Amino acid sequence: MLIQEKKRNWKPIIKQFEAVVGKNGVVHHGEELLTYECDGLSSYRQRPGVVVLPRTTEQVAAVVKICDRNSIPFIARGAGTGLSGGALPSEDCVLIVTALMRQILSIDLENQQVVVQPGVINNWVTQTVSGAGFYYAPDPSSQIICSIGGNVAENSGGVHCLKYGVTTNHVLGLKLVLPNGEIVEVGGQIPEMPGYDLTGIFVGSEGTLGIATEVTLKILKTAESICVLLADFTNVEAAGAAVSDIISAGIIPAGMEMMDNLSINAVEDVVATGCYPRDAEAILLVEVDGLEVEVAAYKKRIAAICKQNGARNITTANDPETRLTLWKGRKAAFAAAGRMSPDYYVQDGVIPRTQLPYVLQEIENLSQKYGYQVANVFHAGDGNLHPLILYDNSVPGALEQVEHLGGEILKLCVKVGGSISGEHGIGADKKCFMPDMFTDTDLETMQLVRAAFNPKGLANPDKIFPTPRTCGEAARAISNKQFESVERF
Amino acid sequence: MLIQEKKRNWKPIIKQFEAVVGKNGVVHHGEELLTYECDGLSSYRQRPGVVVLPRTTEQVAAVVKICDRNSIPFIARGAGTGLSGGALPSEDCVLIVTALMRQILSIDLENQQVVVQPGVINNWVTQTVSGAGFYYAPDPSSQIICSIGGNVAENSGGVHCLKYGVTTNHVLGLKLVLPNGEIVEVGGQIPEMPGYDLTGIFVGSEGTLGIATEVTLKILKTAESICVLLADFTNVEAAGAAVSDIISAGIIPAGMEMMDNLSINAVEDVVATGCYPRDAEAILLVEVDGLEVEVAAYKKRIAAICKQNGARNITTANDPETRLTLWKGRKAAFAAAGRMSPDYYVQDGVIPRTQLPYVLQEIENLSQKYGYQVANVFHAGDGNLHPLILYDNSVPGALEQVEHLGGEILKLCVKVGGSISGEHGIGADKKCFMPDMFTDTDLETMQLVRAAFNPKGLANPDKIFPTPRTCGEAARAISNKQFESVERF
Repeated sequence: MLIQEKKRNWKPIIKQFEAVVGKNGVVHHGEELLTYECDGLSSYRQRPGVVVLPRTTEQVAAVVKICDRNSIPFIARGAGTGLSGGALPSEDCVLIVTALMRQILSIDLENQQVVVQPGVINNWVTQTVSGAGFYYAPDPSSQIICSIGGNVAENSGGVHCLKYGVTTNHVLGLKLVLPNGEIVEVGGQIPEMPGYDLTGIFVGSEGTLGIATEVTLKILKTAESICVLLADFTNVEAAGAAVSDIISAGIIPAGMEMMDNLSINAVEDVVATGCYPRDAEAILLVEVDGLEVEVAAYKKRIAAICKQNGARNITTANDPETRLTLWKGRKAAFAAAGRMSPDYYVQDGVIPRTQLPYVLQEIENLSQKYGYQVANVFHAGDGNLHPLILYDNSVPGALEQVEHLGGEILKLCVKVGGSISGEHGIGADKKCFMPDMFTDTDLETMQLVRAAFNPKGLANPDKIFPTPRTCGEAARAISNKQFESVERF
Repeated sequence: MLIQEKKRNWKPIIKQFEAVVGKNGVVHHGEELLTYECDGLSSYRQRPGVVVLPRTTEQVAAVVKICDRNSIPFIARGAGTGLSGGALPSEDCVLIVTALMRQILSIDLENQQVVVQPGVINNWVTQTVSGAGFYYAPDPSSQIICSIGGNVAENSGGVHCLKYGVTTNHVLGLKLVLPNGEIVEVGGQIPEMPGYDLTGIFVGSEGTLGIATEVTLKILKTAESICVLLADFTNVEAAGAAVSDIISAGIIPAGMEMMDNLSINAVEDVVATGCYPRDAEAILLVEVDGLEVEVAAYKKRIAAICKQNGARNITTANDPETRLTLWKGRKAAFAAAGRMSPDYYVQDGVIPRTQLPYVLQEIENLSQKYGYQVANVFHAGDGNLHPLILYDNSVPGALEQVEHLGGEILKLCVKVGGSISGEHGIGADKKCFMPDMFTDTDLETMQLVRAAFNPKGLANPDKIFPTPRTCGEAARAISNKQFESVERF
């Protein structure tokens, strides 16, 4: 933890940055800094000291070296869509923004890989290779605006990660700037390289071990056939049981998503798909891909399993347009929550799939206990929950209560053998929950890695790992609200 | 690097080990140590100082603590089937053998995972869960004798890793004893845990970061239908082109293996499958799995692609017995090489699949240049080559020549953008080739991790990373033989 004794004199530092990236590449005026004071987790805000926008690996390395020489904390930021505050600045930090690093550096269709700069938007990768029959599999909801660099930092998931895995399964290699400014390459063109899996440890390290400046991504062949099924249920447990039965039958759909009644009505209010029955307690959206015969066979089996579990209606879509309509509501779920309520808080936790009915019931109980509506939208196949807690931030104390409710949901996930994060990362938001999931020895083992790469602690400090200061503050905030049953926060 | 000044007095150390594991758990007499002087790479041999056989995590931790306190190097060994000398002892070391840690600790079919001790044999996992319709995917050739602990250390592959990935893709969590004797747990039941991916960095670290004492493995549902195709070709390039075309068509077979004429005749001499045509220059064995309709469709497409590329005959097998017959020769390939020649040296390298025809021609050229026959057996779909160099170890200098030929094959793999190891690890055998593949900065970055976990360098020293001493020795050995074109060895 870095304690700033007195306000830093940025002037000479800014001059050094300008020498590297030019005057246009450095932002340091009060109002211009506003854009950068938070990422997608808008409940935490802090203006950075200076923002630097490099364009090349060498520029990133030079900027990091200046930070290292002057002991200035630095934080990398991609598109700023992260939901755990991984790119949350500190007052004394340099925010290194990769938004201008937007080159697709090479495309090798024969070996199914592309090399991109970190500021490249997730969806551009697929757009670039789709004409040749390929796509990039990880597809976070924010895929049209989030950057590959941010995806790498947070090990992002998405709807299609059930079958194809999260970002780490699609990154073959990285060019990195280490916290001392050294440039290294990890991984490469071949999936399993000898030596330690440094690529694996960097993906998901949330900028605490360095900054990725080139990313080699695996691209996949587009499937011959894709089908989406929409099944609606009169109770959530039945939908959960259908999910379990589909997986138990040995079927791995490309994606399997669930939405509850509140979410269904929210999206119908906003995007009016016309396909999601407003009186359903839950809908399942199941996508299967593969050969035509395979998709046809799976479609039949999945429909049968849904029926056996009490599904009322099953709609299927094979053509791209109708598929898009069926997905439209799911894709708009977060935005719809924003329309239903002045504010919403997205939680991200994982549970063993078999615990789905129990956990949904417990979330409902918590919702009633706290008096906030919780809409459930989630990657059901992975057991990755996204409860959306609806609240009004203008009500004093509401955010703290909602955070506490979100925290109870995370503890519930851990209690049933799950995880405090599925795909949004730990960032600033969840670091106090790390001890709920890991022992002190486990956390110290992670710190060994952090200290090895980031011995001065300058790369994205105060993220992922709990520190007494911030957790103490959080605990105080909670106790001020006199909540019951605060075990540890 | 540890330099042993004088011979260690083992007596008091043995007493300490006996207090932990009992008298039966410690081996220290000359002849009894013979068993442990090498692993599957029998060209390197060295008796360890003492062998200890613990049965529990706590015993491993206690043994490691004794080593740590007394600054004694320790090396973990599973079943001793590794092919890169990862478990090669040193004279001064304690060899910690996990052969008695053979409990399957838990089976959770609903969540598709089992927890095993490291001494459990790979094949036992499948045997244990196959009745319920599950299997463990990574299947090294040695699967009936190799242990899960060794698989974790070497990140082992196998025939079915084309579709399903290598060991790291199937390990969810580990209980570990760190080099200081501390017990930690990394990963867990959930595939993507928050924090750094310590599970990923441990898998494939070849015992240099600690010892796994419990392994949580993912098990998969057995496919509804499996089919094996055998296609024979009159030239190797045509078979290579078929491999490329199958992958380009978007088909990912469960496995896709290739054998050349020398291997075909070797296995027919030994196991007489009767299915491998002796006059074929190459055969392809392609296994597809999935739904019946899917398998039927792929079978048709793969057969058509093989025919287009000039395959003479295509044999297919759907029933388990005939499938086994088709695989029999491939599975016996290493053993057959042993019958053809007094000794053989298995190389393990990876190339981009598209370079297959060029690399095979170059291997043929090298074979002629050195005057040793090279039989090619390989995971064609992954580009993972296993050239088997046939030689007679009783001929003075033969081993050194063969090692040099093997080294040239590795350099060839690197030259075309591949890797010096696909699934056998680096161990003692290939550490001198690491600088061919990685820059100094890259290797130093790996050393940061090693030093973080293993600061005293006691856990499996002198493996993976080149050291001046051993590489110097190797270079001297080579120069004594006056080989041409030694760039770096």
